[in-house]
Amino acid sequence: MIRISIIGMGMIGTSLGLALRASNPPDKLNITGYDLDRSALNTARARLAIDRAAHSLDEAVREAQLVVVAAPVQATRAIFAQIAPLLPAGAVVTDVASTRAQVCAWARELLPETASFVGGHPMAGKEQAGPEAAEASLFEGAIYCLTPSPDATEHAIDTVEGMVTLIGAKPYYIDPDEHDAYVAGISHLPFVLSTALVEVVTRSAGWKEMSPLAASGFRDISRLASGDVVMHRDICMTNRAALTHWINEAVAFLLEMRDHLEQDDAAHIEAIFEHARHMRDEWLARGRSKRPGESSYAGSPSIQRGLFGGRLPLRK
Amino acid sequence: MIRISIIGMGMIGTSLGLALRASNPPDKLNITGYDLDRSALNTARARLAIDRAAHSLDEAVREAQLVVVAAPVQATRAIFAQIAPLLPAGAVVTDVASTRAQVCAWARELLPETASFVGGHPMAGKEQAGPEAAEASLFEGAIYCLTPSPDATEHAIDTVEGMVTLIGAKPYYIDPDEHDAYVAGISHLPFVLSTALVEVVTRSAGWKEMSPLAASGFRDISRLASGDVVMHRDICMTNRAALTHWINEAVAFLLEMRDHLEQDDAAHIEAIFEHARHMRDEWLARGRSKRPGESSYAGSPSIQRGLFGGRLPLRK
Repeated sequence: MIRISIIGMGMIGTSLGLALRASNPPDKLNITGYDLDRSALNTARARLAIDRAAHSLDEAVREAQLVVVAAPVQATRAIFAQIAPLLPAGAVVTDVASTRAQVCAWARELLPETASFVGGHPMAGKEQAGPEAAEASLFEGAIYCLTPSPDATEHAIDTVEGMVTLIGAKPYYIDPDEHDAYVAGISHLPFVLSTALVEVVTRSAGWKEMSPLAASGFRDISRLASGDVVMHRDICMTNRAALTHWINEAVAFLLEMRDHLEQDDAAHIEAIFEHARHMRDEWLARGRSKRPGESSYAGSPSIQRGLFGGRLPLRK
Repeated sequence: MIRISIIGMGMIGTSLGLALRASNPPDKLNITGYDLDRSALNTARARLAIDRAAHSLDEAVREAQLVVVAAPVQATRAIFAQIAPLLPAGAVVTDVASTRAQVCAWARELLPETASFVGGHPMAGKEQAGPEAAEASLFEGAIYCLTPSPDATEHAIDTVEGMVTLIGAKPYYIDPDEHDAYVAGISHLPFVLSTALVEVVTRSAGWKEMSPLAASGFRDISRLASGDVVMHRDICMTNRAALTHWINEAVAFLLEMRDHLEQDDAAHIEAIFEHARHMRDEWLARGRSKRPGESSYAGSPSIQRGLFGGRLPLRK
């Protein structure tokens, strides 16, 4: 029996529980869940994402072999501090927060030397929050970034990698700073642009008259603005330099567009739109979530290592 | 028999044909299609969007009672000039282009006094172009902006309104300049922001390493950037002042975000995200495509007027 604890029964934590329970065979896993919000915890339990609801952090982690902290960035720090004195020796700790450098620094600072930290960030999401929005298939085929501590044990790395492949995701080792710079562009900037759209049009005096005309284009580009407020606030505050870089790039692009418009330069505008369409279509054609050099869309074979080593059959 | 000609067998023109053919009873309508691109014309014919493919503009319009020009903005101008000497007296002309002021000015300038122009712009779309992407249900429940010429006859207005209700859309009369200012915010700005996202990340030296990490958030916010290049170029060039206004607003917002980030002002950033989420969710909750004052989601009853008056049973 592998004893896993998930701290935080939000959309990601509950999806992780559901994905693990859907793995084969589920009876080798014992999953404990914990959340300060009792109603989220009850929902996760009712959805069978966890085997057992813990009533305290102590109860949640004291016998765990693998602890998954599934919380927004700032809450992840607080949870590290609270579980530090409670973790059993040899425990493997991972997280799912959206920025890596800050979380890895907190892990070094706060977690005991007897635990081993392998940070993680699944590249999968949806704008709905909470355990009701969780899905067992959320991680299927998704890239799952891994940022082990420099002193993480081989057993810990193997265990987290084993969990990632067990839920159908693809482990992708990456430097925390590199991760943060990249996701600022492909994940945090899209959120900021989505919010920019909603803010500029809804702040306008004409919004009441404009809003009935808004259709599918507005709906899709504004989708991320309906996302979890605290999660995105924390992302921005812990990735300020990288996000600021991309905001500056976006401003420069918009000013370039404005210049072309003011100069009535249809040829330049057409060339920009053609380039953007080409690059986006090329990205789409490459297939979702392919790691560099990976040619096929197939998910990774389940790697049987660490806690999961030799105990579970290969995932189809 | 009502003789309708659709000039332009793109996604919108072909969808219009399919929607009309799906109306009840189709045997009261005779739909002729025309496109310079023979393959698009053949596809529209093969999909039964039209009854007959015309081989020239002359053949297409010489007996038409209602002519629908379904083309990008600049092409709409060229088609107006070409059909002007061909239109039978009393013909009703409409279009579907995305900007109104310029198209209405061209109609006044180019179309003969014996024809009557009632411009139109359906608030429905998808990023795929061409007749293959057409759908009979595209206009179902959508707002359909109407901008009649000052001298349009009552018969012409009734006819175009009749066509709009026949395809399940909701007629919405609006001033051309007002239309352009509004759609610049809720339709053209989203396209520019979507393109901005694709351009800034794909121009970056890190794109090759970043792109595998891009997931559903990037996919959705970049969706519009895969749209029709010429259509969007024309939209931008014929709505420069309004679009420039919204680009300036977006730049101001991004600089505001950057200032909050640089000042480490989490409270302000959280308040902005909270406001955006609230406004977006409120818009979603109001239901799609409700005209101001309209309380229910139900489509309009089919209004039997103009060419369609008394000839067609009420649409369910």
